Amino acid sequence: MTSPVKKSKKKSSNGEGEMDYDRSFPKCVDASNWKGVDMAKMQTATTSNGMVMKGDELAVQSLSAQNQCSPEDRQRINVGWVAGPADAKEEYDHKIAVYSQRLGCQMYNFVSYPIGGVKRGFWKPNSTTAVPPPIDLPDVQLQNHLWETYVNAQISPWIDCDSEKEELAALSEVELQKELNYCAYMGLRSAVFRLKHADSPRLARILNQWLWTKNVNLCLWILVPTSAEDLVRLLSDERDCWAVWADFRKLCSNFSSQKLIAGLHLTADIDYEFVDKKLISRWKAEPLATFCVDVDAFVTCKDSQELCLPPAHANLLVELWMSDNSRIMVRGPRDHEISTQVQLQCAQALRSIVRDVSARSSSTPVSGFLVDSNINYVDVLQVPLQPLADNLDSGVYNTFEQDPVKYRRYREAVELAIHDYGESAARPERLVLYILGAGRGPLVTCSIEAERNYNARFRCKRDRLQFEVYVVEKNANAIVTLKYMNQNVWRRRCVIIEADMRDVPSIAAEHGYPQPDIIVSELLGSFGDNELSPECLDGITPLLKPSTISIPQKYTSFVAPIMSLHMHQQIRLCSASYWNRGLPAHGRIGPQLQLDGSYRQNYPQGEHVANMDQIYVAFLRQYCALADPKPVFTFVHPNFENKSNERSASISFEMDRPADLMGFAGYFHMNLYKDITLSIEPSTFSDGMISWFPALIPLRELYRVLPTEKVALYIERKVDDSGVWYEWFIHHTDTDGELHATAVQNRNGESYYMKLH
Amino acid sequence: MTSPVKKSKKKSSNGEGEMDYDRSFPKCVDASNWKGVDMAKMQTATTSNGMVMKGDELAVQSLSAQNQCSPEDRQRINVGWVAGPADAKEEYDHKIAVYSQRLGCQMYNFVSYPIGGVKRGFWKPNSTTAVPPPIDLPDVQLQNHLWETYVNAQISPWIDCDSEKEELAALSEVELQKELNYCAYMGLRSAVFRLKHADSPRLARILNQWLWTKNVNLCLWILVPTSAEDLVRLLSDERDCWAVWADFRKLCSNFSSQKLIAGLHLTADIDYEFVDKKLISRWKAEPLATFCVDVDAFVTCKDSQELCLPPAHANLLVELWMSDNSRIMVRGPRDHEISTQVQLQCAQALRSIVRDVSARSSSTPVSGFLVDSNINYVDVLQVPLQPLADNLDSGVYNTFEQDPVKYRRYREAVELAIHDYGESAARPERLVLYILGAGRGPLVTCSIEAERNYNARFRCKRDRLQFEVYVVEKNANAIVTLKYMNQNVWRRRCVIIEADMRDVPSIAAEHGYPQPDIIVSELLGSFGDNELSPECLDGITPLLKPSTISIPQKYTSFVAPIMSLHMHQQIRLCSASYWNRGLPAHGRIGPQLQLDGSYRQNYPQGEHVANMDQIYVAFLRQYCALADPKPVFTFVHPNFENKSNERSASISFEMDRPADLMGFAGYFHMNLYKDITLSIEPSTFSDGMISWFPALIPLRELYRVLPTEKVALYIERKVDDSGVWYEWFIHHTDTDGELHATAVQNRNGESYYMKLH
Repeated sequence: MTSPVKKSKKKSSNGEGEMDYDRSFPKCVDASNWKGVDMAKMQTATTSNGMVMKGDELAVQSLSAQNQCSPEDRQRINVGWVAGPADAKEEYDHKIAVYSQRLGCQMYNFVSYPIGGVKRGFWKPNSTTAVPPPIDLPDVQLQNHLWETYVNAQISPWIDCDSEKEELAALSEVELQKELNYCAYMGLRSAVFRLKHADSPRLARILNQWLWTKNVNLCLWILVPTSAEDLVRLLSDERDCWAVWADFRKLCSNFSSQKLIAGLHLTADIDYEFVDKKLISRWKAEPLATFCVDVDAFVTCKDSQELCLPPAHANLLVELWMSDNSRIMVRGPRDHEISTQVQLQCAQALRSIVRDVSARSSSTPVSGFLVDSNINYVDVLQVPLQPLADNLDSGVYNTFEQDPVKYRRYREAVELAIHDYGESAARPERLVLYILGAGRGPLVTCSIEAERNYNARFRCKRDRLQFEVYVVEKNANAIVTLKYMNQNVWRRRCVIIEADMRDVPSIAAEHGYPQPDIIVSELLGSFGDNELSPECLDGITPLLKPSTISIPQKYTSFVAPIMSLHMHQQIRLCSASYWNRGLPAHGRIGPQLQLDGSYRQNYPQGEHVANMDQIYVAFLRQYCALADPKPVFTFVHPNFENKSNERSASISFEMDRPADLMGFAGYFHMNLYKDITLSIEPSTFSDGMISWFPALIPLRELYRVLPTEKVALYIERKVDDSGVWYEWFIHHTDTDGELHATAVQNRNGESYYMKLH
Repeated sequence: MTSPVKKSKKKSSNGEGEMDYDRSFPKCVDASNWKGVDMAKMQTATTSNGMVMKGDELAVQSLSAQNQCSPEDRQRINVGWVAGPADAKEEYDHKIAVYSQRLGCQMYNFVSYPIGGVKRGFWKPNSTTAVPPPIDLPDVQLQNHLWETYVNAQISPWIDCDSEKEELAALSEVELQKELNYCAYMGLRSAVFRLKHADSPRLARILNQWLWTKNVNLCLWILVPTSAEDLVRLLSDERDCWAVWADFRKLCSNFSSQKLIAGLHLTADIDYEFVDKKLISRWKAEPLATFCVDVDAFVTCKDSQELCLPPAHANLLVELWMSDNSRIMVRGPRDHEISTQVQLQCAQALRSIVRDVSARSSSTPVSGFLVDSNINYVDVLQVPLQPLADNLDSGVYNTFEQDPVKYRRYREAVELAIHDYGESAARPERLVLYILGAGRGPLVTCSIEAERNYNARFRCKRDRLQFEVYVVEKNANAIVTLKYMNQNVWRRRCVIIEADMRDVPSIAAEHGYPQPDIIVSELLGSFGDNELSPECLDGITPLLKPSTISIPQKYTSFVAPIMSLHMHQQIRLCSASYWNRGLPAHGRIGPQLQLDGSYRQNYPQGEHVANMDQIYVAFLRQYCALADPKPVFTFVHPNFENKSNERSASISFEMDRPADLMGFAGYFHMNLYKDITLSIEPSTFSDGMISWFPALIPLRELYRVLPTEKVALYIERKVDDSGVWYEWFIHHTDTDGELHATAVQNRNGESYYMKLH
């Protein structure tokens, strides 16, 4: 057993400098298991695992129960230390492993170190000497992968491209480019910037150009203070810190959140916008993935006498800790060094705050399905199905058939409808049921179950209610399955009709099929009518009796305004690779054969417009709802009066916070029969149902709104001979009462068109 | 212990049909360990692993040593059985698990089954009844993932879109679409087509449209016979089978090899083109990933009395088995069933032929590095470095410094040069050495070692030859490293000059630096001069003495014509995603700032031309060299006479086989000093060197050539004030003596331009 003191003395005598190694260990720690990494070894060993940051797992035992974290928590939750002028010495610039090792002993996973070295990083510009020290943080002192893993680049704090002093601003622009280039040279994965001004156009210009034109895997972390007081700004400036960030990222073209992310710098004082839940929630729509907490913000816990965060700070962290991929950093005071004990307590206090958050978020019921299915659905754009134009495949049918709620409700609805029909005065002995759009037949199976249940409860053997089941499906492939099911499962009792349901009245006339007493269909999309359920069901109306019951009876679509940078970026990102450029897009015009034999989908309206003017489906996570959903369009069946299926609506919302409107989430609520409903509208959501994710109706650009302002979505449902489409735009009444309108999206269905055939 | 006979009887009595289960087991097998899968279970169990094909591993013991394959081989090498009219019964269409299970016992991994079912698949069209049986292969009899894993779709053999009988051709077009749609419905991953005609334009038209416009993950396998006799063709048609395939894929727009692959159907007779190594090698440039072998092609091995393939067949398989991702199928006779013993022997004989092939290919020395480095380099396009315009990063330097051969040769060259200098009549005591473009300093370290070695061997302490080392580097980031190295490794003996070497003569004059006796540089690209070594070294010439030795002294580029569909497709595939569209391309014009704040690289010449008119670097595997390399441009240093670095050359090759010319592979051979060389030209390759992959000079389109035809590459190296570029095209003299030329590529450097600053 070697004491750490001896170890460190040995190191010193090996010519590793005059570091006081004693100070790098909390006094109370039994360091007998300490597996320190010899720096000299690290430089040469090519097979080293290189755990620069590996400290003593036992150190954690010195903490009270409250702050105790398991070794797993320590690996899982990445806490970094921000090297500051009070604790980082110039000599570390050539011996960063020594410094890192010390921090590892304090349970830190990484260090945010001045990219030009301490001498340059903590230089103070003044009028007499305008030349900063050169960059001096040599790469070869550590293997490349260790830099990548353990070091975050701290851009020199004195760099201030938007300084009022033009000399400093100009110098900063030049020196910032050098530091960015050096980050790229070192292969670092992240660099942190602190916003000093409410407006930083010169900094944004440089970063924007860098992001677009440099092929470098470097993520820029932009730290925003939690108190607007910490920003240089005009007295008249009423923007809050969120708006400062939002304006900054806009100046950076709202660049990909793979490369440009927000961070919050928690100081002792935090503004109301970081306390109020509604205001905080906006950050869930931002690429917020890093936090920096000042040591000054910690307080001593009465019970344990250890450091912890005040409730508001802790709550903010818990609310916004979205995943363990986030990073958190601790920043010491600028003017005096703090003890290693304090360092350690800060790291562990932060871990104990966030350690249970990610466990919480993945335990929601829907997540279970999302995880099981091996496909990542979260925040991924899907194009709504067009079952009329395209045939679904066996795997898609199979997935939908797994829904644990939907078919149970359908069975209940059919059972109730049978009951109402069968228990009528006539007590009929025969019931004609049409399943319209049967797919592989799950509704057939449901209905046969419902028949059996009804007969078991209400009829005896001699007066059984007998079903005649007609099964309509237009997908020729699914017909193969239906025939097999009929033969093997349904005991050949169904009549299978391979046809579009709109042709069924004439087919029925031709074959002498009876009129239905009940029709059952499942034709809804995420936005209700968007898979053309109204048009399909209208097509069968001539065959119905006045008493025919339609399941569903009625459905209504809903919208809610939302914020989400991520979804906006996802839509922008859509584009087809070379071999996929012949795949049909979703507008009126399909791909065209080219002279070279290839096919190509063209976008006369421009690809950006083509992408933004579509309706998508997505399981939304990185978003923030700005108001509760309101109803849009309602359809009732059977539509005996043959009312038009064209609709228009204006749905108005009052805004209650500064925000960037991205578009609208879409939902539906449907009455299958009487009070038996299926819904994905959040307030009436059918728990456990997995068949539908929300729809997404985007705006072309993010749209800034302010509290008390009114936003109205104008949306029209239009129909022509070959299809159906929505057109939409917003009206915005600003605080001055002025009215603004955005351009009409998807005019004439050029980008998103639901084909009737 | 249950005998298989009892087992199968049990099954029969469970109502699983009248299958003769006895016949499904080789008589000699002890089936006590047999883990058959109950078909009824498979239909309902949702968590089943679904090993439909799992048979008795012990069965393999019944084979002779020659054909013995381990269970790992059985999993690793996928052998399928082609269901044929003689062995596949109509009842299997609803019980494919039973059939699959039988084949699993014969050691097959998958089955190629008629996608419409046996009844439809083996239907014979005739004039009286032109309506084929409907598709009847229900999906629900197996879970979706089992279909995906174990079943390949056999397109109905009677489908013949290019039949001379127009009625059959028209019917085939309609029915083929149905079968393709059904493959998509079933979620199958592959469908196999047999080419019947030397020209199949109608089949190609349908498949081409399908490939471009259907968003389906279905790979089409096109089987080409190994005897041209098996194709319907004109008597005047002289094309070989390779050309038939190449013409067919061209009609399919040379579509992605992820979706369109070639297969070889080995019959008893095979043509010379499948025996001759040179002709066979063309298939290495094709997406050949499936084989089908007729049972009739097998012969009985004299020694073991078991089935094996004749040597020519076996050799063909071994030559073209590129990876274990390939698939191989066995096809029985059309008119009579064969024994299960024969089935088993065929599968195992094929496995024993190919099982050692993939081990062989991955044991080449270069592959070791390729595998270790965790990055897939094989057949991946890289853009050549532009070290003059871009700064390399630490990780790139680090990778290059790992080369086990390059720096050893450099050290030997420097040592020999020192020797020649030091052992001259004057016996000087001082040597001035300039390292030009030092990077992080590996050549400095080499040179200091060389000095030590020379002094140790040829000098005593009092007359040591003393180096003065000047280290020139333009990358400001690498200068940080060089300063650190100088301080910590080179004992401060070097003068570090942060400058472009072309500015060094004036800097030297200013600072009074001496003239060099030796200059050392490592500026070569894969195609020799393509990183502008000539221009850089010319820039230092004014500083040299007449006696100055340049290392390297001389280098020559080489080209060889190659075939490679894969590389052609890879280049076509190049395109930037939304966030990457502002990254600079490699032509003269860089990305431009757009009105919305984004940057964008535009291609006035069109993206296809922009991509095809560049020089790439790639470790080539899926290719075929069509001739040995020939020299192109030579440069000698020092270039005291200031000869122009512009060059032009015409390099002529005679073709020796029908082939599709894709472009040229580029190499270099370099003399560092006297006979000490570094080379990537295959005949003189420096074994073990990893720093350079071949260059690739593409043509815009694949270019068909025939034996005895001449192809000449015209290539010019052009220079202007700001950069250097190549322009190239080919002259082709066809068999009739007619001359053809392709368009000049990269005219004026618009697509690929090597910047001087």
